[in-house]
Amino acid sequence: MSIWSKWLAAVLALALLAPAYAREEDGYDLWLRYRPLAGAERAAMLRHARELVAPAAPSPAVQAALAELRRGVQGMTGRLPLDGKQAKAGAIVLGTPASLPPSLRPTGLEQLGDEGYVIRHRASVTVIAANTDAGLLYGAFAWLRAVGTGLAPDRIDERSAPKLQRRVLNHWDNLDRTVERGYAGESIWDWWALPGVRDARYLDYARANASLGINGTVLNNVNAKPEILTAPWIAKAAALADVLRPYGIRVYLSVRFSTPLELRETATADPLAPEVAAWWRGKADEIYRAIPDFGGFLVKANSEGQPGPQDYRRSHADGANMLAAALAPHGGIVMWRAFVYAAENPVDRAKQAYDEFGPLDGKFAPNVLVQVKNGPIDFQPREPFHPLFGAMPRTPLMLEVQITKEYLGYATHLAYLGPLFEETLQSDTGHAPGLTVARVVQGAQAGGRATGMAGVANIGSSRTWTGSHFDQANWYAFGRLAWDPRGSSRAFAREWAAQTFTRAPGALDDIAAMMMDSREAVVNYMTPLGLHHIMGTGHHHGPAPWVAGLARPEWNPVYYHKADRGGIGFDRTASGSDALAQYAPAIARRHADPATTPDTLLLWFHHLPWDYPMPSGRTLWAELVARYDLGVAQVRALRTRWAALAPFIDARRHAEVAQRLDVQVAEAGWWRDACVAYFQSVSGLPLPAGTQPPAQTLEYYRALRFPYAPGHG
Amino acid sequence: MSIWSKWLAAVLALALLAPAYAREEDGYDLWLRYRPLAGAERAAMLRHARELVAPAAPSPAVQAALAELRRGVQGMTGRLPLDGKQAKAGAIVLGTPASLPPSLRPTGLEQLGDEGYVIRHRASVTVIAANTDAGLLYGAFAWLRAVGTGLAPDRIDERSAPKLQRRVLNHWDNLDRTVERGYAGESIWDWWALPGVRDARYLDYARANASLGINGTVLNNVNAKPEILTAPWIAKAAALADVLRPYGIRVYLSVRFSTPLELRETATADPLAPEVAAWWRGKADEIYRAIPDFGGFLVKANSEGQPGPQDYRRSHADGANMLAAALAPHGGIVMWRAFVYAAENPVDRAKQAYDEFGPLDGKFAPNVLVQVKNGPIDFQPREPFHPLFGAMPRTPLMLEVQITKEYLGYATHLAYLGPLFEETLQSDTGHAPGLTVARVVQGAQAGGRATGMAGVANIGSSRTWTGSHFDQANWYAFGRLAWDPRGSSRAFAREWAAQTFTRAPGALDDIAAMMMDSREAVVNYMTPLGLHHIMGTGHHHGPAPWVAGLARPEWNPVYYHKADRGGIGFDRTASGSDALAQYAPAIARRHADPATTPDTLLLWFHHLPWDYPMPSGRTLWAELVARYDLGVAQVRALRTRWAALAPFIDARRHAEVAQRLDVQVAEAGWWRDACVAYFQSVSGLPLPAGTQPPAQTLEYYRALRFPYAPGHG
Repeated sequence: MSIWSKWLAAVLALALLAPAYAREEDGYDLWLRYRPLAGAERAAMLRHARELVAPAAPSPAVQAALAELRRGVQGMTGRLPLDGKQAKAGAIVLGTPASLPPSLRPTGLEQLGDEGYVIRHRASVTVIAANTDAGLLYGAFAWLRAVGTGLAPDRIDERSAPKLQRRVLNHWDNLDRTVERGYAGESIWDWWALPGVRDARYLDYARANASLGINGTVLNNVNAKPEILTAPWIAKAAALADVLRPYGIRVYLSVRFSTPLELRETATADPLAPEVAAWWRGKADEIYRAIPDFGGFLVKANSEGQPGPQDYRRSHADGANMLAAALAPHGGIVMWRAFVYAAENPVDRAKQAYDEFGPLDGKFAPNVLVQVKNGPIDFQPREPFHPLFGAMPRTPLMLEVQITKEYLGYATHLAYLGPLFEETLQSDTGHAPGLTVARVVQGAQAGGRATGMAGVANIGSSRTWTGSHFDQANWYAFGRLAWDPRGSSRAFAREWAAQTFTRAPGALDDIAAMMMDSREAVVNYMTPLGLHHIMGTGHHHGPAPWVAGLARPEWNPVYYHKADRGGIGFDRTASGSDALAQYAPAIARRHADPATTPDTLLLWFHHLPWDYPMPSGRTLWAELVARYDLGVAQVRALRTRWAALAPFIDARRHAEVAQRLDVQVAEAGWWRDACVAYFQSVSGLPLPAGTQPPAQTLEYYRALRFPYAPGHG
Repeated sequence: MSIWSKWLAAVLALALLAPAYAREEDGYDLWLRYRPLAGAERAAMLRHARELVAPAAPSPAVQAALAELRRGVQGMTGRLPLDGKQAKAGAIVLGTPASLPPSLRPTGLEQLGDEGYVIRHRASVTVIAANTDAGLLYGAFAWLRAVGTGLAPDRIDERSAPKLQRRVLNHWDNLDRTVERGYAGESIWDWWALPGVRDARYLDYARANASLGINGTVLNNVNAKPEILTAPWIAKAAALADVLRPYGIRVYLSVRFSTPLELRETATADPLAPEVAAWWRGKADEIYRAIPDFGGFLVKANSEGQPGPQDYRRSHADGANMLAAALAPHGGIVMWRAFVYAAENPVDRAKQAYDEFGPLDGKFAPNVLVQVKNGPIDFQPREPFHPLFGAMPRTPLMLEVQITKEYLGYATHLAYLGPLFEETLQSDTGHAPGLTVARVVQGAQAGGRATGMAGVANIGSSRTWTGSHFDQANWYAFGRLAWDPRGSSRAFAREWAAQTFTRAPGALDDIAAMMMDSREAVVNYMTPLGLHHIMGTGHHHGPAPWVAGLARPEWNPVYYHKADRGGIGFDRTASGSDALAQYAPAIARRHADPATTPDTLLLWFHHLPWDYPMPSGRTLWAELVARYDLGVAQVRALRTRWAALAPFIDARRHAEVAQRLDVQVAEAGWWRDACVAYFQSVSGLPLPAGTQPPAQTLEYYRALRFPYAPGHG
């Protein structure tokens, strides 16, 4: 090697080291990393993103689109695109029908509505076209996503419009900056410092959401406080709305039904009392003066101790419609949650929402959406779809999923939720041919009215936003599925991983495969075969199937698994709670017989003897233990696969994921051991041959306590 | 254009500025920014930092020193220094007497103790020498600080050793990750994820502290929970200790005196009960097995409702000595806080610590330090020094200051605390010639025993660490003063600003001058002329001099200002509470007469009529109003001066500071208006001629409420 090549090698080594330090990745950039391209890829990008051409006097939304394109192209090429005036070779032209010359105007634009976009490349010119500036912003992000996943800039030909109108994050963020079920640090909203101090992070939050098409955010917890509707807090919300507006994101607020009463501004909160309706009208007027594009209210009423219209013997519809009337003049909506169950109600908790809301179908005002959780209990690792889907044909139903992993290992466990969301959306409700949950949510029944999907945010002030690198993928998958509820969670996993970690083909395959396996692993080591809600009391961390002494029956895991010497599972057939009767007949029929019930939901719908013969040839008891073992093995495999990916991932993020996988392996083993020990104590059966006995006694697991667990909010 | 629109414009424009985006400064790097040098400065650095030469088989501390030097040189020059073997031209040689060749061994090293260092540059070789590897680490940081403040690398000739042994941060961080009196987000300790997940931030925390010479950290709140001493939490603390150890930082824990009783492992917490002493001995053994260099315990006992030895009719010494005996075999210490006052004690709160602790002088075990707050009340914008300093000659006293700004505007107001700390340290106790607080703390009286200084940390998980850019300076000044209690807060302000913002001479002068003025501004618009503790109840935010109805007398601001129609101020002379008698005679004499009392403490020691003639020629009433006006004017001036600094500061940080100064101007005006309105209502006097009347009525200010204020913890 010559002196010269040694010198070159040394210089190159330094050049490699310098950016490694400067660019140490901490996850803050999410999937919007825009890391440098090399070689032919960089050359192609330089060739096809030389200039940006935008309408004259660009709106804030178009400015945001241009800023993002500049950031992206500069990041990937090191060179800032020029501001161009006309569509010459190498230009990216953004325009609406009004601003685009006819030769560049794509056909069929009119079918793409207010938020859709077209990207096409012809004769060395890329056109991003939309009917509105919001569509241009989404098109700009789509172009960046396309190149970020490896598409050549001259091969991008995309046409897309959202299938749902309201694509909304629900922040369960409290006014003291704690976050209920938040595992990513405190709220990103620095309420105290607002409105005077506006954290730079709010803008990056807006960018990330806009990149997915998320167009709404409910700022505060559904367990809402009256103060959110006082003047100082409206001013704080307005400041946030100002930051989010250029990114097409509307602000919503969760409201407490009894607010005017608690603020001592009315003598009652009865929705039919004129003074109450007048108060809410006045409050809506006040909000819209500060936030002209305010989205509306999210309401948790008569649920888990929250006040509501039933306190005055009024119905959910009475309550929702009164609020809706206050918002209607301004174009606002009410999202009214169907998550209700009552302590004094002896009926199977899984049935109560349907019982309360089914009869109200058709009674809600046009600007009310009923927000229904994916399953009838509460965001478990696996549930069947909620029986209200398809059963309220005259009411727009909004799907609510939980992005934050309250029941799936917090931000520690790797569990990609795309498959969970997709499983719900693809569920056939049986109410009409092809009527999946996705189609219900898209308005197939209550046509012409509002549509939407809500995700309980997993976002906090941690540097990674979501508490771990992989949890970012759950935010991503939610946003992409809210844009297209019939999208593929596997495709979104690949998209996310390519932008977030690496596009090296084998490594990308491995990461996507890990993600796709991960949720099923969690189901297996926590709640296999349809088990549910056997987590620790309150914090929902770790196994506690033995808990039986809490005041309300449905607070106790034993309520859900009903294990005894004779068997295990919740009989929800006609011989039991008959929750099955809430489903369409075809669905109910299939799940009435354990032999035709998918094993994933077996113990959700059936109480079966321990020696019930499973298709595998094992007894139910042996199968249960085998599933727990499988879950542990799957997590071990995740860890092994991740270790092998070290050459493809930057050191810091690789290590941060690896640490969490170590914890997950340990906690999966704990889940398995504690559940096997407990169910064995109930079944009285010996462990299946060859099974590892639990590492500790049942008493050991029962005695574990977790003070100061996060997420209590 | 508002500050906010300017900020938005700046952020949107960042994509236009290639280097600006890549290097957008968010404050995370603190004063360890190592930004690129240019021209001659870069050339000089390249010439004098070509290679790093370290002892063979470097310890973790030396590796940390080398890593920091590499990071610094690479950041400033773009080039990584090579690893050298011998001291040739351009090398930086780190070594102890054992490793350095005699020709490079500086003289006088033996006087520098375990932590001191020498830096000298001779014949193109820089030597960083110390007796220990910790000293080398401090030397490396000192070299980086020297070049970071603009010293040419061939002109550095420094010799320094800490004047105090224990330089300790007290984190008031709770186990649920809230922080009492924390205004910088939640605790940086992610207790839940520990010990399995070790946040990369812990290492940067260690670096920042080591750069100042801080060598201890109390991880948890003095209002401690029993769980901190259970096995899971000891494991978490041990994981942190592992990260901090290479940086010379020992971990300490705050302990609750009744821990064994509350954990139900003893039947009493009586310090003289053998089972209690045995429990603490066992606990200490357990901790030291996990953390061999554990520092010891910090204890708040029989204070503000905390349990303590007095619950069993034992003294503070009985309690402290029992714990000290458990720690002594392992070399640990007890830091026992003197911050005590009791609801049932009618004596002036300012006197109670002296009354309780003074008689215990000489009764504490050798490994106990009594930790005394700077003043006799509680971290006010201004207090006289605590009368215990100089009054316990046979007891090592540790000074406790509050870095977090509980009473000085949270993390919103600019208030550089260096002058406050320095004012205390430089106070002459009068007990012996030249016996300042600094000299007391350095062990001038209780010679040969432990010495130390504690700062209540202002660190949280906010990106800036401290909630604002300027609050970083308070952490900095604390650390530098703990290393040298006779250091100059002005010099430290310049050092900090040069490393944090700019070395442009005029701009640096301006920033340092702003900092030096800022605390006095706060005193003026909050509590001029010796007023104190008239802040809002509980949260201590904003003015509330009118509060009078709270259960305990000393909870009420009226207790402290005693304003009535006849006058204002707390008579602490012989005609009043006689708190003055707790000071040395010379001090007591000077402050017994209002004419010889400095006006800064006038109303601390005296109750005076409203028409008392001030040296300015004004009446006391007119002077009081003038001081409030002055405070507001001073903050307005800070804002104007900062605006003029825009060309010298990166856009993001400039805007973030500017937003806070806007809030501070508004809140200073609120303080002034509310206090003037209230004191006028008491004095019944007209406003001095030419005085602006308050913007709102007194009722308006009295009605303000601040739910969800931060820092309750």
